[in-house]
Parts: sequence; structure tokens; C-alpha cells
Amino acid sequence: MTTINIETHISLLGQQAKRAARDMLRASGAQKANALQAMADGVLDARAELKQVNAQDIEKAHAQKLDAPLIDRLSITDKTIDHMAQGLRQIALMPDPVGSLGPTSIRPNGMQVSQMRVPLGVIGIIYESRPNVTIDAAALCLKSGNACILRGGSEAFHSNVRLGQIVSAGLAAAGLPSQAVQMVQTTDRAAVGHLVTLTDFIDVIVPRGGKSLINRLAKEATVPMIKHLDGNCHVYVDQAADLTMAEDIAFNAKTYRYGVCGAMETLLVHEQIATQFLPLIAQRLQAHGVELRGCAQTLKIVPLIQLATDEDWATEYLGPILAIKVVPNINEAMAHIAQWGSGHTDSIVTQDIETAERFQREVDSSSVYVNLPTCFADGFEYGLGAEIGISTNRLHARGPVGLEGLTTYKWVLRGHGQTRG
Amino acid sequence: MTTINIETHISLLGQQAKRAARDMLRASGAQKANALQAMADGVLDARAELKQVNAQDIEKAHAQKLDAPLIDRLSITDKTIDHMAQGLRQIALMPDPVGSLGPTSIRPNGMQVSQMRVPLGVIGIIYESRPNVTIDAAALCLKSGNACILRGGSEAFHSNVRLGQIVSAGLAAAGLPSQAVQMVQTTDRAAVGHLVTLTDFIDVIVPRGGKSLINRLAKEATVPMIKHLDGNCHVYVDQAADLTMAEDIAFNAKTYRYGVCGAMETLLVHEQIATQFLPLIAQRLQAHGVELRGCAQTLKIVPLIQLATDEDWATEYLGPILAIKVVPNINEAMAHIAQWGSGHTDSIVTQDIETAERFQREVDSSSVYVNLPTCFADGFEYGLGAEIGISTNRLHARGPVGLEGLTTYKWVLRGHGQTRG
Repeated sequence: MTTINIETHISLLGQQAKRAARDMLRASGAQKANALQAMADGVLDARAELKQVNAQDIEKAHAQKLDAPLIDRLSITDKTIDHMAQGLRQIALMPDPVGSLGPTSIRPNGMQVSQMRVPLGVIGIIYESRPNVTIDAAALCLKSGNACILRGGSEAFHSNVRLGQIVSAGLAAAGLPSQAVQMVQTTDRAAVGHLVTLTDFIDVIVPRGGKSLINRLAKEATVPMIKHLDGNCHVYVDQAADLTMAEDIAFNAKTYRYGVCGAMETLLVHEQIATQFLPLIAQRLQAHGVELRGCAQTLKIVPLIQLATDEDWATEYLGPILAIKVVPNINEAMAHIAQWGSGHTDSIVTQDIETAERFQREVDSSSVYVNLPTCFADGFEYGLGAEIGISTNRLHARGPVGLEGLTTYKWVLRGHGQTRG
Repeated sequence: MTTINIETHISLLGQQAKRAARDMLRASGAQKANALQAMADGVLDARAELKQVNAQDIEKAHAQKLDAPLIDRLSITDKTIDHMAQGLRQIALMPDPVGSLGPTSIRPNGMQVSQMRVPLGVIGIIYESRPNVTIDAAALCLKSGNACILRGGSEAFHSNVRLGQIVSAGLAAAGLPSQAVQMVQTTDRAAVGHLVTLTDFIDVIVPRGGKSLINRLAKEATVPMIKHLDGNCHVYVDQAADLTMAEDIAFNAKTYRYGVCGAMETLLVHEQIATQFLPLIAQRLQAHGVELRGCAQTLKIVPLIQLATDEDWATEYLGPILAIKVVPNINEAMAHIAQWGSGHTDSIVTQDIETAERFQREVDSSSVYVNLPTCFADGFEYGLGAEIGISTNRLHARGPVGLEGLTTYKWVLRGHGQTRG
């Protein structure tokens, strides 16, 4: 497609999505559940075919010499197919987030005032190599009553097209508008630029992918984004900590999975317990292959490790490296988090209730824990049942975003002819 | 100031506000209430002086030949002063919106998961001539635990500077950071351009003023805005309406105040009751001096009025003019609202419960009423106690925005050493 054609294509998708979003306001919970179940059946029925089309994408990826982890993420295996179907059925069985009314207040003149949960409208999802995100994102947007436009990675193009057909068939089977879920029909990068500026038709963009993708989009976007940048997470071990618990928490926070955004990147330790605590945790982490970098005070207690610099405090390693700092008190711990943290997830280990409450109130991150490892940062762990991503925004949705984050509210008022005097 | 100085000034205000916002996380409800009461005392104590400074602004406005309504909005009278003090005391007495915990769920592993209400951070308020907005906006931002940067109209500069001093004294009296409320110290328009793009330090911009101001800001802003554009509101009189009630509602919706954003601009009438209803409401509105414009079918029932064009359906008159359209059914009424409405406030008059529920579910506006005039669109009428404005955004805050709209939430989790497996 030429650039002008791409702009026309994206704009047309937007118009169609907006129309479909209006029809989706009428969709019942049963219809949406039926569509999701039909999609689950469709994914299972197309098992052989999905693997076949996916093989084309993988062959092309090999020919283009894309690197191994990317090809791994691109692959549709029997397990991926089973997971997609299970995910669809799980979301089908969740309660419908749309149409529920909050508490109703009665005003002095007898008017009833409440808020109704409603879909956001049109959601644009921009993602990278994993083709299963096509199913996942479509399911969450559909369940929350939104229309969506999906723009997957160019390397998964054939797989995504086939998955898109399964989604369309599911919508049709339930009598829902086929344009409630649309795929961008081009692999041209210009399409993304048009999507993130289509303010007339798209209400929110959810980017899913690496930091460089999201950074690039954030610079161009005029449509609001529910996005997630850094996860520079801290665990602070207070002087009143149970040190055995602290050791388990710190170890788990670092080693559960190095690559998750909730992984601990800096450990802060109160100086009163540093000489007792640091050798224990250092030994355990080093035995596990984690490289340690510490402040000058840490180095006095744990010798032979590298001195941490400001760059370490600022870095989200996403790997087997940990920065360690000894702090004189909770104020300095919180000041460090405020200066270097990314507002994602931070945790205190303490048995002192007032210290715990102060940390939880004053640390300004989207998730603040007491006596838990930061790696719990995940919508399923929070009980959201599903997750479109984790937001480090302050407006609208913060932290793990489930179905409710894909909805908004409207005010609904009922009266019997009251007038304003 | 030179342009570079203005940018430096605004950036410095932003840095200071961000620091103050962090200190405000520690402010207690009592401190905030004390500050607000001290400001109320300060406003009353400075009565004579406020009128004196305000007279300078008014003299200058006369010299610049600004028009009469603007000069009227600019004036600080004894009544304005009393209202400012009363407003401050009311907000002081409201419950603190910060720090409250939502429902707590216990996860299978025993973790407690809940959400805590927290301030948004730094709020920029951009407003026009009324100097009392300085007090009003500062009070709402302070009560909700935010730092704010206020940029009032240049014509109210002297009044705003004096009010700013009263605010600062109130903050100091309660031991709160003086930079929690800052005024932009220049009347140069360039300052606004810097404010709305200061994404590093400002979390949200709330513009208060006419449509042209807001439209201009929306084009430049990269900081998210809680804003309000058009209020093209509809009342639909269904075939199952109580026609006496419908007449009262339609009359009140149009004539309560022509200039409010909740004023009805188009009346939609079901064709089955049009011949009975239209002469009644037309006569009453015409007797009140309202000019009517109708569709062809309306003209057959109410002769000698102007034929409405597409421009009428699109217009927010904010004056004594009303467009009227006869529709064959509720579907056409809702389609008209979807096509021409602005998503602000729309109402149905009907005695039929299923029709009412359908309208309330399917009309996609920030407020949807049953048997009430649209002019109830106001935070005080909804019971919010105070209002920073009305939002036609879809994300974050929708409709009348009270203190809660100036807050966000964070996830707070408590455990006792659980780890992720």
C-alpha cells in the first residue's frame, strides 16, 4: 500500500470500529460469552491449520535471520493453542463488567444518582511478535464491550490473519458486529503512526511490547495510552524486619524470573541490621548466580563486589544483577525510591505496623507492598482474572489492568419530573 | 520576562510543585482542613484590601475597553468575598478523599489486596477572568492532596496575586509546603504553552473557561487534560411520557439558565404524541421568549417557526433558541443523539421502564437521565460537594468532577512472607 492508502485504510478501520462500538453497547453478556466460547472452539478446530500458517511465518523469520528468542515467541505450538482456548473460556466465564451500577444515592429532591460501568469505546492494541496476543487482546476488549483494532508484529502476519478469521467467525456466531474486532491489513510501520494519532475514532491505545516500542509510540501518540515503561522495583528491609522472612522475600523478588517487570532491581537495607542481614542474602543470591553491586557501606560488609554507581540505581537490569544500598532510616529509603524508582512496585519488609503504614502511604508507586516480594505484580495474582497489561500511568488505570481498566463509567440519574429552581 | 525566562520560570514551578506534591503525601486531613480554614479567615480579613487591588484590575480593564460581561466576572464584591470564604469552609469540612482503602480481597495464598485513594500529583489549572477561581481551584487541589500551579487571566493579575498570598499564608499556618500552591508570575501567553507540555512535572491540566481557550489548549497539550468541550444536550419525549411532566422538564431544561452547559439545545419528540405535546411546549417556550426551529414535521404542528438545518442539530446555542425534531421511535432518537450530540448530558421522559433502561444503557453520554431536565448537570446537584468542572473525556473522570476526580489509586498489598512459586 502507498502511504496515502495506509492512512485511508486506518481511518476507515477507525470509522468502522466507532460504529461497531455503538452496536456493542447493545451486546448482552450472554452474546459476548457465546462469541468467546465459539472462538475457543474455532482455535481448537483450526489446530493443524494454525500450525501450518505459523510455519510460514517462522520460515520467513529464519530466512530474515531474526534472532532465536523472537522466533521462539513467534511459535504457535500445541501448548500455545491449548492456552489460547483455555484463556478464551476463562474470560467467557468471568462476570460481565459492563452495565453494573455502583451505589445509588438519593438527593434531597428525591433524584437517584449512580454510576454505570460502560465500555471505553474503541481500543487500539499494538503488539509485537507473540501471535497469541491477538486472541488475548481481542477477548479482553470484547468482554469489556469495546471495539478494537489490532496491530500485531509484521513477523507474525500470516498467523495473525488466520487468528483474526477465527475471531470474526466467533463474533458472527454470536450475532455481534464483525467490525468489533479488526486487524490492520498491512505490515507497513506507517500504519502505527496513523493509529496512535486517530483521536477522532480511537479512545485509548494499549501498547504491548518492549520498552523501545512503547517509548517510540509515547512520543508520537496523541490518543491517550495505557502504558507501562520501566519497572525499577525496590525491596526495603527495615530494622524491624523478620530477617528470615526478609531473606526469602528478597531472594524470591530477584530470582522468581529475572525478566518480569516486577523483579527487584535494588535492595535497600537499614544500617542497623545490615551486618547481620547482608551476608545471608548475598551468599544465597551469589550461589544462585546473581551478580551484586553495592554502595560503599555494603562493600564493607560484602567484600569483593562491584561498587554501585548512579547508573545502577537507575537501571532496570531484567537480569541476574542486583544493586544494594545501606540506608540510615526509612526516610532515606523512601527518598531513594522517589529519586530512582519508576513508580512501578516497591515493598517494605518490617514487623512494625506504623512503619509499614507509613511506607504504604508515602511511597508513590502504582503498587506498594508490605512483607511480599515485588514479583507478585501481576493481574492474575491480584485476582483480576485477566490482564491487558500493567500501567505506570497516574490517570485512569494504575498497576495491573484487568477488564475494569478497559471500561469507564457514566452517571445515570432517575427522577420523576423534578426541576431545578 | 523573555521567552527563555518564561520557560525557565514554568519549569522551576514544575520542579517545585513536584517536590511539594511528595511532601503533600504526608499531609494529614487535619492539616489540610486547618489550612483551608486559615485561608477563609485570610480572605475575610483582607476584605478591604482585596476590593482595593481588584479596583486596579477593573480600572485597567476599563482603560483597555474590555467588554462589560468580562468586567463583571472580574469584579470582587462583598458577596464574592463571602462566597470564597464559605466555599473554603465547606471544602474544609468535607471528608478527606486521600488514604481511604477500598474493599480488601484475600487471595488464596493469604495476601490482602486493596486499593488506596491517593493524590494525582501536580495539577495545572488554567482559567480566565474570575479571580475567585484562584481560591476555588487551590482549595480543591489542596483538599485532594495535590500540588497545583495556577494560571489565571491576565486581566485579574493583581487580584490573583493578593489571593495567592492569602493561600500561601494559609498553607504556612498549617505547616504545609508553601509550594503546594503556586501562581504563574507572568501574564505572558507563552507561559500557558509551556504549562500544557510540561509532562515531566505536571500530571494533569484542568482548563476552566470558554470553548476557544479549551480548544486552543487541547491542540497544544501533551499533558493529559480533564476537559469539557461542548454541551449539546437533548431531551427525548417518548410516546409513553407523562406529557405534563414532559412539558415541565423540557421547559426547565431550556430556561433554567440559557448559558449553562447542561441546557437543552434540541428537543426530540416521538411522532405519536407530537401533535398533542408540541403545541403545549411551543406556546410555553415562545411566551418565555425562546425562538424555536423545527424539522419539517414540527412545522406542520407548530407553524410559523424557522426550519431547522443540520447546523441547528450541531449547535450549542447557549441562548434562548431551541431546535425541535419529531422522530418515529426511540432508535431514531438515539441515532440523532449519537450523530449530533456531544456526549455531555441527555435525558428521556417516559413512564415505560424498559424504554427508560434501554435509553440509559445505550446512550453514550457522560450523564444519562430518566425523567429529569438536563440542567441538573452539576457536581453539587449530584452530591459531590464541590466541582472542579465537568469532563467530556472518556478516560479517568467523566461528567461532573469532584474531589475524587482529582485523585487516583494505588494497589496496596499486605502479606507475611508469601513468595511466588
